Amino acid sequence: MERAEIIGVGTELIYGETLDTNTAEIARSLEAYALKVERTLRVVDEPLPLAREVGQAWERARLLVLSGGLGPTPDDVTREAVAQALGEPLVLDEEMLSEIEAIFRARGRSMPEANRKQALRIPSATWLKNPRGTAPGWWVRKEGKDLILLPGPPPEWRPMWEEVLPKLNLPRRPYAKRVLKTWGIGESEIVERLGELFQREAEVEVGTYPKLQGVEVVIRGREDRVADLTERIRKRLFKEIWGEGDLTLAEAVKRRLELEGATLATMESLTGGLLGAEITRVPGASRFYLGGVVSYSVGAKARFGVPEELLAKTVSAETAKAMAEAARVLFGSTYALSTTGVAGPDPLEGEPVGTVFVALAGPKGTEVRRYRFPGDREVVRLRSVYAALALLLT
Amino acid sequence: MERAEIIGVGTELIYGETLDTNTAEIARSLEAYALKVERTLRVVDEPLPLAREVGQAWERARLLVLSGGLGPTPDDVTREAVAQALGEPLVLDEEMLSEIEAIFRARGRSMPEANRKQALRIPSATWLKNPRGTAPGWWVRKEGKDLILLPGPPPEWRPMWEEVLPKLNLPRRPYAKRVLKTWGIGESEIVERLGELFQREAEVEVGTYPKLQGVEVVIRGREDRVADLTERIRKRLFKEIWGEGDLTLAEAVKRRLELEGATLATMESLTGGLLGAEITRVPGASRFYLGGVVSYSVGAKARFGVPEELLAKTVSAETAKAMAEAARVLFGSTYALSTTGVAGPDPLEGEPVGTVFVALAGPKGTEVRRYRFPGDREVVRLRSVYAALALLLT
Ligand SMILES: O=C(O)c1ccc[n+]([C@@H]2O[C@H](COP(=O)([O-])O)[C@@H](O)[C@H]2O)c1
Ligand SMILES: O=C(O)c1ccc[n+]([C@@H]2O[C@H](COP(=O)([O-])O)[C@@H](O)[C@H]2O)c1
Repeated sequence: MERAEIIGVGTELIYGETLDTNTAEIARSLEAYALKVERTLRVVDEPLPLAREVGQAWERARLLVLSGGLGPTPDDVTREAVAQALGEPLVLDEEMLSEIEAIFRARGRSMPEANRKQALRIPSATWLKNPRGTAPGWWVRKEGKDLILLPGPPPEWRPMWEEVLPKLNLPRRPYAKRVLKTWGIGESEIVERLGELFQREAEVEVGTYPKLQGVEVVIRGREDRVADLTERIRKRLFKEIWGEGDLTLAEAVKRRLELEGATLATMESLTGGLLGAEITRVPGASRFYLGGVVSYSVGAKARFGVPEELLAKTVSAETAKAMAEAARVLFGSTYALSTTGVAGPDPLEGEPVGTVFVALAGPKGTEVRRYRFPGDREVVRLRSVYAALALLLT
Repeated sequence: MERAEIIGVGTELIYGETLDTNTAEIARSLEAYALKVERTLRVVDEPLPLAREVGQAWERARLLVLSGGLGPTPDDVTREAVAQALGEPLVLDEEMLSEIEAIFRARGRSMPEANRKQALRIPSATWLKNPRGTAPGWWVRKEGKDLILLPGPPPEWRPMWEEVLPKLNLPRRPYAKRVLKTWGIGESEIVERLGELFQREAEVEVGTYPKLQGVEVVIRGREDRVADLTERIRKRLFKEIWGEGDLTLAEAVKRRLELEGATLATMESLTGGLLGAEITRVPGASRFYLGGVVSYSVGAKARFGVPEELLAKTVSAETAKAMAEAARVLFGSTYALSTTGVAGPDPLEGEPVGTVFVALAGPKGTEVRRYRFPGDREVVRLRSVYAALALLLT
């Protein structure tokens, strides 16, 4: 099989000052193609080593994708390195220069000198327009191979990559991947429940991946086998599966509430606003989410309707219940979710870190669930958010 | 300068199913040594490609560190690949085998056949004991170079690496790295303002990295030169610098408010709780943060104190001001922050995506700032959160 090479450019990627997630995301986007990704690289932004790595990668690859190092500063040297590796000169493209100047004009500024170099390209490159920034990319087609140069920030390169990828005419393969999302069941329990359905063959392979939004069951392999096995697994885990693919819990909640024509409010303590933030990440959230209260202090809990006698022990099922019910009244919503608990780093009110209560108040009453989550402060807070959302789904 | 090569082994690292943080952590641990890390690699766990990458890296390196692929399963092939690359046979070490068997006995189990291969080594390797698992590592010293083989899980490899690193007698260098954090100034403006201070030499090097919390100015190189240059840059950018190193805006806000003995509340719209969530990520937030309101609907804005006449046009400086002032009264806090605006994906009230107002109400009055942020919905929301926090710092 031919190879794809993926390079993330930037000294900060090597040291993890910026986490390199670009190369992995690009690798995943190639899964449906008959190209092998044997390795990915992070390379310093220095012309010589970068040119050497680009040269070697270009030699072995059918497709070479680079991201990063297209900015205006002196340490943005990807253009220079690629030019050198491919033995071509860099020439200024007057048309592109005008376009970049126009971007600055639209922002009411004049273009700094430094940005001129973003209009440089090698003769065999065509431009990939950047809808979100001043750094355009390159598409080089040469010797039956493609080289793609993308900027580093995901919001910038993603639309550029999505546009150019289908045009590359890469060889496809009959490959499918399905992801079933569960809540409230662990990995080993899934393996047990699936039994003979937990297949791991050359043609179809099942895997489980524990994530904060619950364990994912991934089925990959030949299209027909995957479709068939997915349906059988779906039936076996019917009660625990709340979604598929890229769906998030917040998106699943939105679907359900919109179908019902219902509205939602929140009252959060340990999550400090993270539950509202997760709900409103989804475009269209304002169609059902009325708002929330972050009752991070005892005073705030009292002000927003938690009864006096509960305030001495706020990490409790009763407080979670009172909070959800208070939020439902305060906002006049169909449903309300609440969170209270101990995110850490220290125990609180005699309860260990990870002790969390979530509640759902609705027309038919209030349901409370208790958890003892592993993980640090931020992980406990995220798990609490997902546990609250899961109340509306499982 | 001699080179260090770092390889993370595992197909799951390439696709990001497991996040590769090992190579970056190992790179950082080498910063104090006179070795250059020009690139890091993630390689599939397949013997041939892995052996090829190991061979190439070994050729150019003074030090080669590999992590991952030392488990008992068939796709753990790092030992085989290294043996092949170095042209040595794999031999079973009876002593190590007994030790691994003993680990299993201590857990009340007998060793599965599959684990036998963890006792294989090449003749030039000595063992690195694994205090937390069954997979021992290797230390190969050959041709004046060192090759270190570590398991993948950080709790396992960290103590092993810490023990072996000082024994390698690597050349040291007086190295330092400082990170200055700014708000309200762009990369090219920083380059212009720094002028001759934007040094990029072998001994000291300045770089700028745009982050959502503002542009970071990183100064690295020889200790004395870094210390000197950092102070000069700090003076030049005095008004824009709000912190240094790993500090986040929320941590800087906490420091300031605790020093002052002040308290804080929030009222957020487009950020939906993300501002409160960011504030409460910091342990100890409850010492100054009283709570907040997420006024995601017009009804919620009205209920929590935004005057009737503003509700027709909520994306405005007046609404941001009214929200901050209302939150300050509602919670009785020293300060209050607010956010309102258009996160997208569509324009709202005639304002384009990215239009955001943030406000700070305090004892001396209320300050409002207007932004037009680039980026998608989530990026706009994050930038809004950081812009709100920056009101307390710059
Ligand atoms: O700032 C506000 O008052 C406000 C409150 C709720 C939503 N918005 C914005 O309104 C738009 C539609 O919201 P949504 O959640 O339904 O996608 C989106 O751009 C949000 O950022 C804005
Ligand atoms: O659930 C609550 O009522 C609640 C409200 C505020 C804070 N907490 C928890 O109290 C602990 C101390 O909070 P903090 O923000 O000062 O570190 C920490 O474990 C928080 O998760 C809990």
